[in-house]
Amino acid sequence: MTRKDLFKLILDRKSYLCVGLDTDLQKIPTHLRSLPYPLLEFNKSIIDATRDLCVAYKPNLAFYESLGSMGWDLFKQTVEYIGDSHFVIADAKRGDIGNTSKMYAKAFFEHYQVDAITVAPYMGEDSVGPFLEWNDKWVILLALTSNIGSIDFQMIEDENGKSLFKKVLETSSNWGSTDNLMYVVGATHPEAFKEIRSIVPDHFLLVPGVGAQGGDLEKVSEFGMNNHCGLLINSSRGIIYAGSGQNYAEEARNAALGLQQKMAVLLESRFS
Amino acid sequence: MTRKDLFKLILDRKSYLCVGLDTDLQKIPTHLRSLPYPLLEFNKSIIDATRDLCVAYKPNLAFYESLGSMGWDLFKQTVEYIGDSHFVIADAKRGDIGNTSKMYAKAFFEHYQVDAITVAPYMGEDSVGPFLEWNDKWVILLALTSNIGSIDFQMIEDENGKSLFKKVLETSSNWGSTDNLMYVVGATHPEAFKEIRSIVPDHFLLVPGVGAQGGDLEKVSEFGMNNHCGLLINSSRGIIYAGSGQNYAEEARNAALGLQQKMAVLLESRFS
Repeated sequence: MTRKDLFKLILDRKSYLCVGLDTDLQKIPTHLRSLPYPLLEFNKSIIDATRDLCVAYKPNLAFYESLGSMGWDLFKQTVEYIGDSHFVIADAKRGDIGNTSKMYAKAFFEHYQVDAITVAPYMGEDSVGPFLEWNDKWVILLALTSNIGSIDFQMIEDENGKSLFKKVLETSSNWGSTDNLMYVVGATHPEAFKEIRSIVPDHFLLVPGVGAQGGDLEKVSEFGMNNHCGLLINSSRGIIYAGSGQNYAEEARNAALGLQQKMAVLLESRFS
Repeated sequence: MTRKDLFKLILDRKSYLCVGLDTDLQKIPTHLRSLPYPLLEFNKSIIDATRDLCVAYKPNLAFYESLGSMGWDLFKQTVEYIGDSHFVIADAKRGDIGNTSKMYAKAFFEHYQVDAITVAPYMGEDSVGPFLEWNDKWVILLALTSNIGSIDFQMIEDENGKSLFKKVLETSSNWGSTDNLMYVVGATHPEAFKEIRSIVPDHFLLVPGVGAQGGDLEKVSEFGMNNHCGLLINSSRGIIYAGSGQNYAEEARNAALGLQQKMAVLLESRFS
């Protein structure tokens, strides 16, 4: 999917919501567990309930890997079920030496056919480059993450007072373009968005941390939105586990709708 | 496996060699490709040919993931075939927010039953911690990697002239102990080992980059060895693709033997 197509999708659906599919057998409604494929059933219901309210889905690979090879089938079936109408992000946080990153790129872009993969920057350019060689596929590089540990290294300042995450943004923005590179910036750091936009004004940002982790949609949108929207706001647990009973899909829809309606207003004020 | 057991294994086998299983259908001998399970056959032959010469095996997950769910079966069968007589490292370079890292730890330590997993430090303590909660299981944290891109961020200095990889060593050494935490330090930076040993004198180091990437076994051993040996030197392509014909396993054995014999001399001079 191109940046233009993604922006069009956002305007059409009046949404820049990404639904995180952190699917966990311990957390899905108990009545599903007796089905032959409870996790696939759960994902399908969540996707059906939120399809018109979001532009992206983000399966978190850890949840699938923990199930062994069966989990990889579930991941593939889930990606296929989503189809071409959404931007699909493999939240995998990979990153390795060149020949290895190439294998990962092949796995995710060819075999699983996702649109984007999250990548960790620690190993530098040759660990990220192989992911950028695919047409209309995206790298989403970790810059400033939403967790507490983001302060341990990402905030370390160099001799000029520049934090590591800013160096990551500056250096890596030359590796790709606004058409194949996005960044992860956690909603738990709303104060950082203004400065981040001065470094990467045109790139899309994938923003986790709204919902369960406490980030604020309005603040993030105020400082983070650019003239192509430039934001994909992710919510995982806050949507998919909104309900735990028979009507879990309806409750997931309501949680997604709550975010989408706020997004429609924010988009309207910017792009009408 | 405990640190004491690993050191005993090293002395018994006169080896601190780790064989990297970067198994790739494009690179295995052509005569294997007509077999029903060519990659498993290849791994088994390499393991049989090197078992007495090494103390560890390191399957690189990218190569297995790129095959889809079939690759995960191959990974599991390979780990099972290796058995308890070696230290098994899942080279996965994972690292995510706490609840996600917990899922990864469960996947690798419970489902696949490896001894250790490589983890990327960028997301900080809460991304690494969940991997450290398992008895006799290990985190191998990326510190200074062997690739060219290691200079992009790992070498960035703070206001006191301290590089990021040194901050990673200093900070993270408090998260675990010498009994559950190792570090990746590339053999392509032999000059760094002396300084690294001043920060983490007692930790084991996993050292990639000998062989195809040009690192020097003697130099690394001179500056990196500690009183528990403290080194696992990895070679992947240099061993497993040493030969490409009918006698590929024998040639892999010869390549491993060349390294093991040098290691025996280096161990003898230190621990006799």
